[in-house]
Amino acid sequence: MASFSSTASADSTNPLNALNIFNTLSSEAQHAPSSGIIGMVEYARGKEGLIPLWVGEGCLPTPDFICDAAAKALKAGETFYTHQRGIPELRQSIARYHQRLYDRPFNPERFFVTGSGMQAIQLAVRMVAGVGDEVVLPSPAWPNLKAAVGVASATAVEVPLDFASDGWRLDLDALFGACTSKTKALFINSPSNPTGWTASLDDLKAILAFARQKNIWIIADEIYTRFYYDDARTNAPSFYEIARDDDKILFVNSFSKNWAMTGWRVGWLSAPPAVADVIGNLIQYSTSGVAPFMQRAAIAALEDGETFVTEQINRARVGRDKLLDRLQGNNILRYAPPAGAFYFFFGVEGEDDGLMLAKRLADEANVGLAPGFAFGQSGSAFMRLCFATHPDQMDLAIDRLNLWLSKE
Amino acid sequence: MASFSSTASADSTNPLNALNIFNTLSSEAQHAPSSGIIGMVEYARGKEGLIPLWVGEGCLPTPDFICDAAAKALKAGETFYTHQRGIPELRQSIARYHQRLYDRPFNPERFFVTGSGMQAIQLAVRMVAGVGDEVVLPSPAWPNLKAAVGVASATAVEVPLDFASDGWRLDLDALFGACTSKTKALFINSPSNPTGWTASLDDLKAILAFARQKNIWIIADEIYTRFYYDDARTNAPSFYEIARDDDKILFVNSFSKNWAMTGWRVGWLSAPPAVADVIGNLIQYSTSGVAPFMQRAAIAALEDGETFVTEQINRARVGRDKLLDRLQGNNILRYAPPAGAFYFFFGVEGEDDGLMLAKRLADEANVGLAPGFAFGQSGSAFMRLCFATHPDQMDLAIDRLNLWLSKE
Repeated sequence: MASFSSTASADSTNPLNALNIFNTLSSEAQHAPSSGIIGMVEYARGKEGLIPLWVGEGCLPTPDFICDAAAKALKAGETFYTHQRGIPELRQSIARYHQRLYDRPFNPERFFVTGSGMQAIQLAVRMVAGVGDEVVLPSPAWPNLKAAVGVASATAVEVPLDFASDGWRLDLDALFGACTSKTKALFINSPSNPTGWTASLDDLKAILAFARQKNIWIIADEIYTRFYYDDARTNAPSFYEIARDDDKILFVNSFSKNWAMTGWRVGWLSAPPAVADVIGNLIQYSTSGVAPFMQRAAIAALEDGETFVTEQINRARVGRDKLLDRLQGNNILRYAPPAGAFYFFFGVEGEDDGLMLAKRLADEANVGLAPGFAFGQSGSAFMRLCFATHPDQMDLAIDRLNLWLSKE
Repeated sequence: MASFSSTASADSTNPLNALNIFNTLSSEAQHAPSSGIIGMVEYARGKEGLIPLWVGEGCLPTPDFICDAAAKALKAGETFYTHQRGIPELRQSIARYHQRLYDRPFNPERFFVTGSGMQAIQLAVRMVAGVGDEVVLPSPAWPNLKAAVGVASATAVEVPLDFASDGWRLDLDALFGACTSKTKALFINSPSNPTGWTASLDDLKAILAFARQKNIWIIADEIYTRFYYDDARTNAPSFYEIARDDDKILFVNSFSKNWAMTGWRVGWLSAPPAVADVIGNLIQYSTSGVAPFMQRAAIAALEDGETFVTEQINRARVGRDKLLDRLQGNNILRYAPPAGAFYFFFGVEGEDDGLMLAKRLADEANVGLAPGFAFGQSGSAFMRLCFATHPDQMDLAIDRLNLWLSKE
């Protein structure tokens, strides 16, 4: 009777049976793609001495003052169910953070604490798109954007950015031309992961005007907005600079990058108050909120973390400069200096298989990169390198890449 | 230009404009219901001296040994991205926990760490159901089950349990008769929140046989399995006692109840290995995993928490006994002694509006209960009281209820 054993039973190792089980799953589940980034990590996880630059995190753990706030709240017994939208103190703190960035007041009621930036994206997509609907987005793009659209039974329509050695470019006419009567939202990630493409304020104005005219939503992923390398302004251009309170924009954000909290899975969603109840309900039916002691840590990050964020930004800037200055073989490399975010997205002239290159670099140069195909067809000749890491590690990675390139 | 202000703009307070925004949302988002439990909490949150027995948690914070494990992992820098399926040590620990409960080995690969039991439910539903599909479930039921089905674009079909003063009963013929060609899964919550109904092993055998024959899934919510009040056995009957490794059962579970970790939002999903990749992908595109330092705490709960769990169970048993022994006015109360879980689901003879009763009890007796309508039409005359709390608090609540009943 009890054959639920630790060794796979004959049935479960039967590929036909496994296929039969798979075929009973929903279409959305069957088609959720494996992440090409995770696939690469699993290809080379644990390889001795490998420098892991494949995911979007540095080598610093979360600073002590943030961890201590969580530990203190744990000690104080903040372990019960809490507000599904986030504790009021954190929502106020997020509002103040935006006030500091954009120099005007924000209503705390427009901010919703989520179990990661990813969950903010999932909620945003679920809010605006369903069966038969389309979401249009520039590509290459972080694979999870498209996948989240698919999980919501909708279709992601990719509009390729144009590669040029002085920067990736978005053809606004192509973006708008890709919108049909089925389009429910434009998904704008600026600065972009993986290309570093960053919309100008004029781009954002044109996109907002188009979205208003078509009565469609914008999902704005401005997670990397503070990682911006144009000396003319501090942060990347933002929809917050041009939008009204009630514009149909869902901003997704995360504590992961600015405050080295990748593992925490805490983020936020910013939305017009008219949809507040809907967001509360969708949070209730997905994770029902975020641990209160983690929210205390998030408050510490926002209130006391500005020095640390500045160091993070400087570290990324140093990493970017090192790559642009030191990486040799520029005659055989294809890349555009990233305007924002903290990724170097590059290929090798004459090579159109970025996955093969990434595997070779893991095996032969001991550097872990994300293969470009993971970000869409238009990225498949490229690889993504995260440069938000320790300068010494960047130098070592560049040494290894230069050595490898010299043998090519 | 910058009118994104902290005071609502003229536009956002215009109800017509708010309605226009709402109407652009996806059907799934528009129809996600507000939780009647949360609604009640919001009705009376902060009422001085109110005894809150409306949600499924006691008054004990998470034990120190669990919190300390999280704090220690934070100190050790376990703050980076980690395995989307859960860290191997926790998956092994969950497998050992099941081995102790069911006295045989389990494959750690069948367990997936999730950001709450709720997320496990969301993932399970998304896996098996989509547009046009149906999920059949006994009712009254925890509202989030039905709502999660709706968010996945599918339809929940409720099969009312029959109320009798010696126990709620499930008519298996009615359950099976509710299944059509559209049915993708049976959602079986046993012991049941809110009724305490608990399936017998024969019930489970019949349900499993039916599901196998129809080639449909079972989503098994056995979260309350250890809160069981039949002296004949320790834990409630479980599908684990009769199922094969490759049966199409998705078990959802949570650290919330056994280990007083409601606020943490950590749970797990247990599934046939054939769908492991799909689960990993769906986790990736919803929250991308659970904080590693929280997973260390979960390991501590499983490995060192057995004494505490026993105390939790005893506390619930004491609370249940007090209610059944001390609650007066039994001639006007309608209830069945719960076989399992830790809720007392009761109504007042001649009163069919449990919401009105719950509001009156909050206002007039200062006891917070969940209104039964939240659990489905068949529960609308009832109210739910969580008795997994301190004996003194139970006594005080019963005193207040008795006083209120004496005035009825």
